[in-house]
Amino acid sequence: MPEASAVTDEGDETDAESGQTPDFDGEVPVSVRVRADTLKPLLSAVGALVDECRLTFGRDGIRAAAMDPATVAAVDAELDAAAAASYEADGTVVGVDVTRLEDILSMAAGDDPVTLALDPESFRLHVVADGLEYAMGLFDPDSVRGPPDVDDLGFEHTASLTVPVDMVGRFVTAAGMVADHLALSVDPDAETFVAAADGDTDDVQFTVTAEEAVAFSPGDAGSLLSLSYLIDIERAIPAGTDVRLTLGRKAPLGVAYDISGGDGRVEAFVAPRLKAV
Amino acid sequence: MPEASAVTDEGDETDAESGQTPDFDGEVPVSVRVRADTLKPLLSAVGALVDECRLTFGRDGIRAAAMDPATVAAVDAELDAAAAASYEADGTVVGVDVTRLEDILSMAAGDDPVTLALDPESFRLHVVADGLEYAMGLFDPDSVRGPPDVDDLGFEHTASLTVPVDMVGRFVTAAGMVADHLALSVDPDAETFVAAADGDTDDVQFTVTAEEAVAFSPGDAGSLLSLSYLIDIERAIPAGTDVRLTLGRKAPLGVAYDISGGDGRVEAFVAPRLKAV
Amino acid sequence: MPEASAVTDEGDETDAESGQTPDFDGEVPVSVRVRADTLKPLLSAVGALVDECRLTFGRDGIRAAAMDPATVAAVDAELDAAAAASYEADGTVVGVDVTRLEDILSMAAGDDPVTLALDPESFRLHVVADGLEYAMGLFDPDSVRGPPDVDDLGFEHTASLTVPVDMVGRFVTAAGMVADHLALSVDPDAETFVAAADGDTDDVQFTVTAEEAVAFSPGDAGSLLSLSYLIDIERAIPAGTDVRLTLGRKAPLGVAYDISGGDGRVEAFVAPRLKAV
Repeated sequence: MPEASAVTDEGDETDAESGQTPDFDGEVPVSVRVRADTLKPLLSAVGALVDECRLTFGRDGIRAAAMDPATVAAVDAELDAAAAASYEADGTVVGVDVTRLEDILSMAAGDDPVTLALDPESFRLHVVADGLEYAMGLFDPDSVRGPPDVDDLGFEHTASLTVPVDMVGRFVTAAGMVADHLALSVDPDAETFVAAADGDTDDVQFTVTAEEAVAFSPGDAGSLLSLSYLIDIERAIPAGTDVRLTLGRKAPLGVAYDISGGDGRVEAFVAPRLKAV
Repeated sequence: MPEASAVTDEGDETDAESGQTPDFDGEVPVSVRVRADTLKPLLSAVGALVDECRLTFGRDGIRAAAMDPATVAAVDAELDAAAAASYEADGTVVGVDVTRLEDILSMAAGDDPVTLALDPESFRLHVVADGLEYAMGLFDPDSVRGPPDVDDLGFEHTASLTVPVDMVGRFVTAAGMVADHLALSVDPDAETFVAAADGDTDDVQFTVTAEEAVAFSPGDAGSLLSLSYLIDIERAIPAGTDVRLTLGRKAPLGVAYDISGGDGRVEAFVAPRLKAV
Repeated sequence: MPEASAVTDEGDETDAESGQTPDFDGEVPVSVRVRADTLKPLLSAVGALVDECRLTFGRDGIRAAAMDPATVAAVDAELDAAAAASYEADGTVVGVDVTRLEDILSMAAGDDPVTLALDPESFRLHVVADGLEYAMGLFDPDSVRGPPDVDDLGFEHTASLTVPVDMVGRFVTAAGMVADHLALSVDPDAETFVAAADGDTDDVQFTVTAEEAVAFSPGDAGSLLSLSYLIDIERAIPAGTDVRLTLGRKAPLGVAYDISGGDGRVEAFVAPRLKAV
């Protein structure tokens, strides 16, 4: 997740075909035709944390990245060009109101093809679906907070497990009944993952064994997390999705999953809390 | 839509059978037996604009008419006597709390026959359905604002089209995302209907071609309308209904549709705005 | 419904097996395994009136009893040990947050077996379901208002009828449209039950004949009741349940029904009002 400071994410490269540095009014116009329900999971993932995000129409696909205002959680989502019925773009980066874009797409039937086209003159994104044309104003991408580069942060992850999203939903819901934080840990000897929340009078604990997980890579890990970010991230995950949780010792939690039948990927991170308040 | 000033809508006629001027305690008692779901669309159409309306139990059917408090929109709805399992009335006009009457009918199953009977002594409408008898207080119809006579207003309509109600729903929803008003126009050369709304940063436009419409009678037409009235009117239209939109040059919009399988009709009007604020 | 002043409901008996007075840390640990949807109707019935109640884990089953804060309505609910997949208890009485316990059970699928186990050391109830363990803090049962003994109150009931719960729902909903109270009466000559509510302008009346009732035992009866308690009690009754209403002359209304396929029983009472305000 590079800290984008320019309007292109490939600013140090030249466009192979045009021989020019691609920018907003480059030679290749941005024009994407994609089913509404193919695009929605990418937007939902980012919209869970922010209202405004950077959207990159790269040569190989769309990328959305954001960090929440409190800089506790970040998300990076990609959708391959192959997921679209037709795809033309060269790396233009724009700032969009992601909630608004979700609302517009919700007016299209799930299997409706939606066309997204950038109008460089008016700096607007045209969303066209079945008789409806919506021209959405864009932001300067530099005015939108981008996520930090995850690799630069040097997280040391020691354990991971893959579970169905409804299992994640169960433990965040249960934890929310007693507290606003949640301790996630992996016991390498017992080969179990434990989500635990302590309230004033009530405690709750959710255990996943290696056998119950889709995949389990044990290791010594344990972090305390603010629940609200996890709740938001979990809500954006499509039903039936397998989710990979990555943990460390007082390290951020990673939440990764595929979208759009494998033609896209979401990776979210939640920074640990030092202690419960 | 005559401005009713008396308690009968046929006050200048005499009752053929009784030889008397029909009034609230006339010779023919009002007694109507009708399915709850047959009566509901008439009430919904009027309830979309007002809480209280005039209800006329005419010899040939029930008529409800109302104008909204700001006198921007009016509605006139009729249900033929043939839609009822049994029907007896002679032109009595009463003022009813239409929201309350909708609530009462919502307690009856859709295919339940409901009996409406006027009690002239207590000035109440008795609604009887499956063990339940509800006696609803009535208003003096003169105390309820009636709609103006549409013919007197001399609207000059120049174009019309018929579209499924869900198409109307799409463009009022889309317009509501960016503005509180909506421009409707017909391009006679292109043979298209366009609904357009301009917001501060975003614009939305919905186009219906002659081919996409159920029926299309082109002509030069264009009006600016307050969105809230259109939203209320559209919500009251039963799913699957074809709606006829009538337009002029800065003239009111007409919204007309059949109810109860053709045994009733609704006609609504929304006055144009001079300009967007 | 005895006014429980001790932590056991069988405090005057000795435990046959252990030879000791059973108490919270008795020889027989409380451990119940039961489907979530088997336990829910008992909790719903009590939760309709109170947030906190006394829960008795008796030798033959679970009993929950409560009186609302205004001491107008009381409820007593039982679930036989036979309704549970496994059952071990000796009469321990605890105070529970019934709303919280309902929330916890709502996280289990209806046909999930849930295990309830008392931890006498931490004075908490452990609820275990499919990976999730919730430790719920308990109250001193003496701190929770128990219901009065119904037999001591000497109600003289003169009439009763059994009707489907949706019939009760219809008349409480209809009455709620016009008033906050409701008169229930039985006419022994006409063999009818009448629920009537008088509002400022509107009246509503619901009549059940002996033929329409599942069972009818006529007698002179009539009471005025606050509607809100009836609404709360009715909402907690599972769909499709037959409800037995017991009436007297200015006597409390009894509302009794079976839960969990006959393996449990609920009995609620609502004290009459002297007059409508």
